[in-house]
Amino acid sequence: MSLLVQKYGGTSVGSVERIEAVAEKVGKFRDQGHDMVIVVSAMSGETNRLIDLAKNIQATPDPREMDVLVSTGEQVTIALLCMALKKRGYDARSYTGGQVRIITDDSFNKARIQQIDDENIRADLKAGRVVVVAGFQGVDEKGNITTLGRGGSDTTGVALAAALKADECQIYTDVDGVYTTDPRVVSSARRLDRITFEEMLEMASLGSKVLQIRSVEFAGKYNVPLRVLHSFQDGPGTLITLDEEINTMEQPIVSGIAFNRDEAKVTLAGVPDLPGVAARILAPVGEANIEVDVIVQNISSANTTDLTFTVHKNDMEKARAVLEQVAKDVGAREVLCDGNVAKVSLVGVGMRSHAGVAATMFKALAEDNINIQMITTSEIKISVIIDEKYLELAVRGLHAAFNMHLEPQQTK
Amino acid sequence: MSLLVQKYGGTSVGSVERIEAVAEKVGKFRDQGHDMVIVVSAMSGETNRLIDLAKNIQATPDPREMDVLVSTGEQVTIALLCMALKKRGYDARSYTGGQVRIITDDSFNKARIQQIDDENIRADLKAGRVVVVAGFQGVDEKGNITTLGRGGSDTTGVALAAALKADECQIYTDVDGVYTTDPRVVSSARRLDRITFEEMLEMASLGSKVLQIRSVEFAGKYNVPLRVLHSFQDGPGTLITLDEEINTMEQPIVSGIAFNRDEAKVTLAGVPDLPGVAARILAPVGEANIEVDVIVQNISSANTTDLTFTVHKNDMEKARAVLEQVAKDVGAREVLCDGNVAKVSLVGVGMRSHAGVAATMFKALAEDNINIQMITTSEIKISVIIDEKYLELAVRGLHAAFNMHLEPQQTK
Repeated sequence: MSLLVQKYGGTSVGSVERIEAVAEKVGKFRDQGHDMVIVVSAMSGETNRLIDLAKNIQATPDPREMDVLVSTGEQVTIALLCMALKKRGYDARSYTGGQVRIITDDSFNKARIQQIDDENIRADLKAGRVVVVAGFQGVDEKGNITTLGRGGSDTTGVALAAALKADECQIYTDVDGVYTTDPRVVSSARRLDRITFEEMLEMASLGSKVLQIRSVEFAGKYNVPLRVLHSFQDGPGTLITLDEEINTMEQPIVSGIAFNRDEAKVTLAGVPDLPGVAARILAPVGEANIEVDVIVQNISSANTTDLTFTVHKNDMEKARAVLEQVAKDVGAREVLCDGNVAKVSLVGVGMRSHAGVAATMFKALAEDNINIQMITTSEIKISVIIDEKYLELAVRGLHAAFNMHLEPQQTK
Repeated sequence: MSLLVQKYGGTSVGSVERIEAVAEKVGKFRDQGHDMVIVVSAMSGETNRLIDLAKNIQATPDPREMDVLVSTGEQVTIALLCMALKKRGYDARSYTGGQVRIITDDSFNKARIQQIDDENIRADLKAGRVVVVAGFQGVDEKGNITTLGRGGSDTTGVALAAALKADECQIYTDVDGVYTTDPRVVSSARRLDRITFEEMLEMASLGSKVLQIRSVEFAGKYNVPLRVLHSFQDGPGTLITLDEEINTMEQPIVSGIAFNRDEAKVTLAGVPDLPGVAARILAPVGEANIEVDVIVQNISSANTTDLTFTVHKNDMEKARAVLEQVAKDVGAREVLCDGNVAKVSLVGVGMRSHAGVAATMFKALAEDNINIQMITTSEIKISVIIDEKYLELAVRGLHAAFNMHLEPQQTK
């Protein structure tokens, strides 16, 4: 008799038949006495259809109107799922983001949730209703429709689970869990039973497509147990949980290898090396709403420095434009951009207590003659930026070098 | 420099190209200095696509969820039209029904507008923005999404025009005005330059598809000049206005012939003829939200009476079920239903001062051997219920009998 928040993605609700299957599944949980809150995405293909309509009109569609447009996708799904539940005799009620009152800031297309009013949902649960909520969307304080960006439905699910203090937030997807790395790249990749929030965060932010990063942040912050499961196959999935809840003796040194092809490298070269210059460069980039990932600064020569950072490939031209202006302001020599890079990262809380992970990593890459362009490290990950064409080669080599195809030692 | 409310129907916004054409048109009005409020329907085909999705799940879809579902259709159009306007350099902002706060009652699928909050729209107009509003939809006081029923976008347009005290409400459609009757039935049917609200109300309620009845009621009640125009052809259209504004010497006796194939005839036969029995029969029909049109009661024999009325064909089975119960309660003999009837009506404010219209009508029908099943009259119309198969024959005969293909005498 738990309170479960379940999120079904676009593929899981991609047709009337699949929506019926989801209703069937939700009904079974309800029969077991669980209180159910269901978060759904738009039917697969629908968001792209809407974006195409918009792009036929405006190459860069107006951000406010874009959110008005694409938020209809989830609205369709909530209505259809409620119908499928009612047909099976389960009372159900749908909510758009605005109807819940999922309040966000006003950054259209990538808004952040600020507050959730759970009053109506709690009343519905008390009355025995299944509550079906449109993922990905909210409203700002003025009532404008906002969306959370691609994959935002996961965030909606976790934020609702946190607000409602749910027992578990279950993310149903088209994969049966989180893998050591992408099985399409490494055929011996292995499903993980458990992974920590921190590790998952690094995996997600580094490009593993299973969960959206903000959903993991939220889950970690509010300690919402998060489980990734396959929508139409039975199985335990992968539980994402607190570090201390995982038996450290089972802990491998490296839990997973994440990678990301969406990065672009931007360098401002020949910057006069004065205090505060990095901030003067990066502040306008942030103001332009461009997310910066890896940042590296080197002394190059005679009182000048090079500052290099990575951004999403889609933001590269925008970043270039911002930096061309910054270059004039700070007296830098030139702006260099490279869209053909990829990031590969080893992730694992086990690294904290094991030296030599970096050495093993760099050695494995060197053996494959892969040049490392940038390096960053944190307590639980090591990332390198390499030429995009070596990506698969690098991931396979590292997976083998750390024996990640083998189950970690079971000591219980 | 007027304030114009323009409504574009589904065909007028049926593709990206047509939405662009509407934006072009709206822009020209804006260039002339008019304040513009645009009401749009869903892109043609979209509402049916959504209904089909729902019906694949539930034969009779849940009414609340149906409104959540179909209201997305207009939401798509408002966003796309705003993008098309912005692309042309016109500032524009979209509103869903809920965002305007078009407050309706909570009769899902056929809600009625109770109140419109015009504050935000006025502020936008003052700021020089084109305001684009989703037709057909509103919210009830609890924030549930409601829809006004098919054709409800006309009502949204007129209600907004009334609330904003607009100079004219222009309804753009795929016809170039209101005709003496349907040109597909009578090839010599003639476009009317003007028609009164009363006449239009009778024409609309009797099945002329040009305008939704409630929009005309609203327009008449608040004296909003209403003009029907073709979306993509220039022309004066038909102005719907107050009686006194039309030169009575130009007034024909009969302005138009309306007809309706959607009626079904329901009879409760052998009802004990006691005071209050008609109310006892019709009250439960009303409570079941079935709209009753023509009602006729005859004394049949020995203290019993037959009560006959017409309902929408879609409501016939529902009416039958209600009446089966009523028959038991009031001790009536039987319930008879006939779905193969049609209604034909002559409409014209000129009838008020001309006797003999009914006689001419009945004579024309008799000459074509058409049996009249029910008759009702009002000050400005005469309606008959006939066998559906004679409908076209009846309309053609009446159009000729009243010389409606000829322009009325011009005396100015």
